[in-house]
Amino acid sequence: MKKYLLAPGPTAISPEVLLSMAQPILHHRAPEFGELIKRVREDLKWLFQTENEVLIIASTGTGGMEGSVSNFLNPGDKALFVNGGKFGERWGKICKSYGVLTEEITVEWGCAVNPDDVATALKKDPTIKAVFTQASETSTGVAHPIREVAEVVKSYPDCLMVVDAISALGVFDVQTDAWGLDVVVSGSQKALALPPGLAFVAVSEKGWARADKVNNAKFYFDFKKEHAAIKKNQTAYTAAVSLIVGLEQSLKMMKTEGRENIYARRALMAKALREAMTGIGLASFPKQSPAVSVTAISVPEGYDGQAIYKDLRVKYGITAAGGQDHLKGKVFRISNMGYLDTFDTITAVAAIEMVLKAMGFPLKLGTGVGIAQEILLKK
Amino acid sequence: MKKYLLAPGPTAISPEVLLSMAQPILHHRAPEFGELIKRVREDLKWLFQTENEVLIIASTGTGGMEGSVSNFLNPGDKALFVNGGKFGERWGKICKSYGVLTEEITVEWGCAVNPDDVATALKKDPTIKAVFTQASETSTGVAHPIREVAEVVKSYPDCLMVVDAISALGVFDVQTDAWGLDVVVSGSQKALALPPGLAFVAVSEKGWARADKVNNAKFYFDFKKEHAAIKKNQTAYTAAVSLIVGLEQSLKMMKTEGRENIYARRALMAKALREAMTGIGLASFPKQSPAVSVTAISVPEGYDGQAIYKDLRVKYGITAAGGQDHLKGKVFRISNMGYLDTFDTITAVAAIEMVLKAMGFPLKLGTGVGIAQEILLKK
Repeated sequence: MKKYLLAPGPTAISPEVLLSMAQPILHHRAPEFGELIKRVREDLKWLFQTENEVLIIASTGTGGMEGSVSNFLNPGDKALFVNGGKFGERWGKICKSYGVLTEEITVEWGCAVNPDDVATALKKDPTIKAVFTQASETSTGVAHPIREVAEVVKSYPDCLMVVDAISALGVFDVQTDAWGLDVVVSGSQKALALPPGLAFVAVSEKGWARADKVNNAKFYFDFKKEHAAIKKNQTAYTAAVSLIVGLEQSLKMMKTEGRENIYARRALMAKALREAMTGIGLASFPKQSPAVSVTAISVPEGYDGQAIYKDLRVKYGITAAGGQDHLKGKVFRISNMGYLDTFDTITAVAAIEMVLKAMGFPLKLGTGVGIAQEILLKK
Repeated sequence: MKKYLLAPGPTAISPEVLLSMAQPILHHRAPEFGELIKRVREDLKWLFQTENEVLIIASTGTGGMEGSVSNFLNPGDKALFVNGGKFGERWGKICKSYGVLTEEITVEWGCAVNPDDVATALKKDPTIKAVFTQASETSTGVAHPIREVAEVVKSYPDCLMVVDAISALGVFDVQTDAWGLDVVVSGSQKALALPPGLAFVAVSEKGWARADKVNNAKFYFDFKKEHAAIKKNQTAYTAAVSLIVGLEQSLKMMKTEGRENIYARRALMAKALREAMTGIGLASFPKQSPAVSVTAISVPEGYDGQAIYKDLRVKYGITAAGGQDHLKGKVFRISNMGYLDTFDTITAVAAIEMVLKAMGFPLKLGTGVGIAQEILLKK
C-alpha cells in the first residue's frame, strides 16, 4: 500500500532531500563542511528573519527547549509560561526541573493565550525574567498571538520573550527580529521536512546579555559554546552532518518558493481542509486562532477519534495523529507541514470521508473534496 | 576526484545504510517503528554484550557522556577520571560543570592508564563514587585496559565504572556485563558507520540504583525517563527515526559478519597499517596498547603532520585526521572504523607513501604496501 505521512512531525521528506543525505558523508572538520554550514546558517537567518546567528544543535526540538531554559534562567529566577497544551506544559516541566519559579497562564485547550493576561501577570510581578510560549501548540492546533505577546514583553527590559516555534517556523510568519523575539527554537522534522535530529535556536542580543549571568550546570546544550564555534564555521561538538546536508537542500527549495508564497500556500491548504471538514459536519477543534501547521478536528458525537486515526492508517496507509491526553479519542490531527501540496490535502479529505462513511457517518462522498477543491483553485 | 573517508568519525557509511535511510520516513509513534526499535534494541544488546537495556538518544556521543555524569553523580560527589587525551579531559570538564569533585589520573598522551594507579586512588579515597575512562582514546590512538580497571572498581560496591566506548564498541571486544562495566556510552558515527546523531548508553543494575539517588537538573538527558519509555517501545522524546532505520541495517551487517570476525578483521587491518608505517620509518605514536580503532602515526623529524594530512586530502581526496592540541603537526591519524576493508588499508598506506615521497622523505615506494599485503593475506 502506498504510504502518506500526514502527522505533525516527523513529516514527509522530499526525494531531493532524501537523496542529498544518501550521498557519501562529509567530515565535520573538513573545509568543505565549513563552507556548507556557513551557507546553511545564512539561509536559516533568512527563514528566522533575524540578523543574529542561529545555533544548530544535534538533538530534537526538546533539547533546544531545555537549553532555552538552562542558558537564560538561574534557579530561583521567575518565569511565566503559557500552558495551553502538551508543549506549553513542557515549558513548565523544564523550568521546574531547573528550579525556576513559575507563574502559569492556563489556557483552555483549543484556545489561544490572551496577551492581556500576559500584561496583567507581568504588571503583577515585574521581576519575571522570561515568558515562555508556543507559536503553534501542536497538541491542540492553535496558534498563539506571539507578536502581540512580544509587544507586551518588550516594555520589560529584563524579561526575555522565548518562543517554541518548532511547528510554526516555515509554515506561517514568525518575524524574530521585527517582533522582538529573544529566543526562538525550532526543529528539523516539521516544516523543514527533514528527519528529526536537529534543533535550531535564534538568540537576540538581550538574550546573550542574559546568558552571561546564568550559571546552570550544562555541557552539551551550552549555547555560548555553540555561539563561539560559529566564528570557526563549526559546531561545538560533532555536527549531525547528514542532516545539515539535507537542511541545505530543504532551505534551497524554500528560498526558491519564497517565504510569502510558502505562507500563502500553507494557509490555503489549511483553510481547504478545515472548511471541507466543516462542510461534512466535523468541527475544527480550536475555538479560536487555528494554526496553519496542524489541523485538529473534533470527532462527531458517538464516534471514536482513535478509530478514525487507526482506519486511516490501516485501510489507507495514511499516518495522521490522534489526540493527546484528555483529547484522546476526541480529536484527530492532520499535518500541513513537510513535503505536502494541494493533492495531499485532497487525499486527506477524501480518506476521512471514506473512513467516516464506512463507520456509518451520514455524508455524501465528495462533498468535502469539492469544498477543498473550490478553495485550492484560488491558488 | 574519488573521496575516501579515513577520519576517526564520522566514518564512511555503506551504500546499504545510506539507501535504507533514503527511504520515506516512518512516524516515531507508528506501530511499525515500535517494532523496529524493539529489534534494534535487541541487536544493540548483542553488540554491547549486555542483558540490560541500551538507551538510544538523539544526540552525538558527548550528550551520552554528559548524561553519564548528570544521571549518576550529585554535586559534591567525588569522581576519579583518567585523563590521557582530549576525551579523557572531557570527562573532567563535564564533571566540573556539574559540581562533581574530581580526582584525576594524568596519563602521558600515548600511554595507557595503569590499573594499579586506579587501585591506589580508590584505596586512598574509598568515597569515590565513579571512575570515568575511555576504552579507546581517539585523540592518541591508545586503548585503556578497561577490563582490568573494572576489576579494581568491582571491589567498591558504591563506585560505578563508566566507560566512553564511543570509538571502541564494534571495533574490539568490550564485554559490558562480564567485565562489570556499569555505564557504557557509544555513538553512531564510529564503528557503526552511521551519520552522527545517536548516542547509546548501557546501564547496569548498580547504575540504575545510583540514578535513583541523584537529583541534578536535567530533562533531555534524563536516563530514567528514557529507560521507562523502552517498555512502550518508544523513546522519551522524538526519536531520530532515520538514523535508527540505518542502525538496524548496520547492526544486521555486523551480526552477519559476527562479533569475533569483526574484531579479528579490524585488528589485522590496524596491524597491517602500523607495521607498514614502521617499515617505512614512521613510528606508531602510542608507546603502549595501540587501539585498533584509530592509528596515530608520529611524523618524522623535520616534516609537518598537518601538511601530510592536508596533502592526503588535497592531492588524493583522503580525509584523515591531524593531531589535536599539543600533538598538532606531530601526529596524523588514520581511522580503522566505519565501512572500510582490506583495500582501504592498502589505499591509506599507498597514499601516505606517495605524499611522503613527494615531500622528499627517503623511501622506496611499495615498501609499506608490501608489508601490509603480507599481513592482510593472513586473513
